[in-house]
Amino acid sequence: MDFDALFSEQLDALKAEGNYRYFAELERQCGKFPRAANHHADGVRDVTVWCSNDYLGMGQHPKVIAAMCEAVERCGTGAGGTRNISGTNHDHLLLERELADLHGKEAALLFTSGYVSNWAALSTLGSRLKDCIILSDAGNHASMIEGIRHSRAHKVIWKHNDVADLEEKLAACPANAPKIVAFESVYSMDGDVAPIREIVEVAEKYGAMTYLDEVHAVGLYGPRGGGISERDGIADRITLIEGTLGKAFGVVGGYITGSHALCDFIRSFASGFIFTTALPPAVAAAARASIRHLKESDSERLRHQQQVARLRAALDRAGIPHMRNPSHIVPVMIKDPVKTRMLANYLMDEWGIYVQPINYPTVPKGTERLRFTPSPLHSDEDIERLVAALSHLWKQCAVAHAVA
Amino acid sequence: MDFDALFSEQLDALKAEGNYRYFAELERQCGKFPRAANHHADGVRDVTVWCSNDYLGMGQHPKVIAAMCEAVERCGTGAGGTRNISGTNHDHLLLERELADLHGKEAALLFTSGYVSNWAALSTLGSRLKDCIILSDAGNHASMIEGIRHSRAHKVIWKHNDVADLEEKLAACPANAPKIVAFESVYSMDGDVAPIREIVEVAEKYGAMTYLDEVHAVGLYGPRGGGISERDGIADRITLIEGTLGKAFGVVGGYITGSHALCDFIRSFASGFIFTTALPPAVAAAARASIRHLKESDSERLRHQQQVARLRAALDRAGIPHMRNPSHIVPVMIKDPVKTRMLANYLMDEWGIYVQPINYPTVPKGTERLRFTPSPLHSDEDIERLVAALSHLWKQCAVAHAVA
Repeated sequence: MDFDALFSEQLDALKAEGNYRYFAELERQCGKFPRAANHHADGVRDVTVWCSNDYLGMGQHPKVIAAMCEAVERCGTGAGGTRNISGTNHDHLLLERELADLHGKEAALLFTSGYVSNWAALSTLGSRLKDCIILSDAGNHASMIEGIRHSRAHKVIWKHNDVADLEEKLAACPANAPKIVAFESVYSMDGDVAPIREIVEVAEKYGAMTYLDEVHAVGLYGPRGGGISERDGIADRITLIEGTLGKAFGVVGGYITGSHALCDFIRSFASGFIFTTALPPAVAAAARASIRHLKESDSERLRHQQQVARLRAALDRAGIPHMRNPSHIVPVMIKDPVKTRMLANYLMDEWGIYVQPINYPTVPKGTERLRFTPSPLHSDEDIERLVAALSHLWKQCAVAHAVA
Repeated sequence: MDFDALFSEQLDALKAEGNYRYFAELERQCGKFPRAANHHADGVRDVTVWCSNDYLGMGQHPKVIAAMCEAVERCGTGAGGTRNISGTNHDHLLLERELADLHGKEAALLFTSGYVSNWAALSTLGSRLKDCIILSDAGNHASMIEGIRHSRAHKVIWKHNDVADLEEKLAACPANAPKIVAFESVYSMDGDVAPIREIVEVAEKYGAMTYLDEVHAVGLYGPRGGGISERDGIADRITLIEGTLGKAFGVVGGYITGSHALCDFIRSFASGFIFTTALPPAVAAAARASIRHLKESDSERLRHQQQVARLRAALDRAGIPHMRNPSHIVPVMIKDPVKTRMLANYLMDEWGIYVQPINYPTVPKGTERLRFTPSPLHSDEDIERLVAALSHLWKQCAVAHAVA
């Protein structure tokens, strides 16, 4: 059987619909973020990155760099085993304590990624709690969807951020079945924010546990970077808060926080936790340094919000439509995969501005977009230059105007 | 609903059967492997680690350490995004080329872990190839089992390492259905090795693709560390070779290698690849340094095999039964979770020898064991001391003798 032909057939279909993905090859350059080198067909050029999830540039913070190198030189490059079989390092436990403290919870548990933390935690809860029903926000991330699917628990999807719909669906569930309300705080692609308090209140009313993904909020919101749930003073009423070390904290990895019993339960039963090599101690040490810094320092968050507001204002002045939301994510809708890629290519080639075209399956077909993520390290000039480039494009390109 | 009570109930059941897990808290100490510090209730003590999967001690190799720190200082601590959205770094592509070369394949694709590489690749192949049948060795790793389960493809389990049974089951499949024969080279817990050539030949006969997990073999076998498939000269006939950067290569991460079309297919469709932050460029750089070193240097592999043989001979002289196998993994069967933990605790407390008790779900219930992994860095004295400790235990403990 010609397997390559089967693969190529499906890849060709992707190409035909404009959804085939071309990765931009970068070289991040410590101390120069958001500047990076971009390797392309004809050589290497300097670009300004406008779509990184290293939201605060902590991936190049001197404290974080120093912590990682110190730990590599102290402990070596890897953990050497699963958490159970020789892979648990002192640095992992220090980080788990730091994370529990960040969210005001009894305990925390590390995973190799945010994806794995969602997938492993939800698939374990859904499969091991008898008759469990998972009520999942329609906008939830792929990692949550796959975790729920893998659990084979009964799944009920409620309308995105719609508390009335959630309540209706909770009310329809059997009273004595364990219920989990799973949702996010900041949704990564539209940048909208969940009404967490209202969701928690309705979940409590029906005795459901709450599962909150804060990956696009930790480090960025709340006085100590504990996310939207900290900002809104509601963290103590959420059963499980999940987060990442790979976005605002600038490293890699994921985690959950909650009660001792909850974390011990996932630790003891989750295949995706048990059967995988632990994160390098140096990753844990770097993440901890980043979290500790952002617990004490508010300046990155303030400057971040300033630059987000500045970009939005500049877009408004230039008449470039962008999606309104209360977060740091600035989507400009194009609604066609081919046009989105064309615009992104033009920005990269003519202006040295790198923004990845966002297409299916990251967003639904027909909602393709450019998604800008200003950081505290984007200068006012960077913002002016971006808006100048977009204005130029918008003037040239009636098509883009029409669809926006 | 009292969720903590539900969690505690299942944890109590684990404890009652002796399968609750206590992680040993270590501090790896660069340059001292296999020595490490162990944090315990009364303080910190020095121990000799006998169960690490940093099989060659590459996690503390000066070249690997230097590559990681150099890259952290050059690029920062994280990738800053998914591979598609600003997360692809030059270091990732250099590593993917190195891995493709290692296995003599056209292409390679990185994942955040070996677990994720198996889970994502098998779930994508099984779900996207219409009418696909996956023929899975009965001893396959949890990550493969979960990937196959998640794919919802038709699954056929063949008897462990039994080519006749595989052939019988292949012959019973519809001729025109896409078939994948999934297996490992070195099985991690029994240390036995698959008859790869025979498996490949029968798979070819029935037009099936072959999926080979080499995580416990890469770096360790073959003239350049390409695994058992390189050693046996059969790599070119295997469709997909999967491996890890977290064991013999001493870092973290996983990968697949195969044709361009195959890797592009997984890259384009695998949720577990698409929706997750890329590995830090520094992890990629460290892994590449490790692979490059082991492509050229055979001394670690030779000394590794010597120390494995030395441990087995010493165990034989002392009359301590151990499982015969052709690999570097030395299991001593205890067959009871409580006894296994008791023996491990004794070794740790009285002798400063750390070997994690291996219990369910890592091995089937009733096959609990101590699993020793000698490295090139374990001295002859370390081996003598281990065997002295075990001899002492075996003499004291008739029970252990009886069950062994």
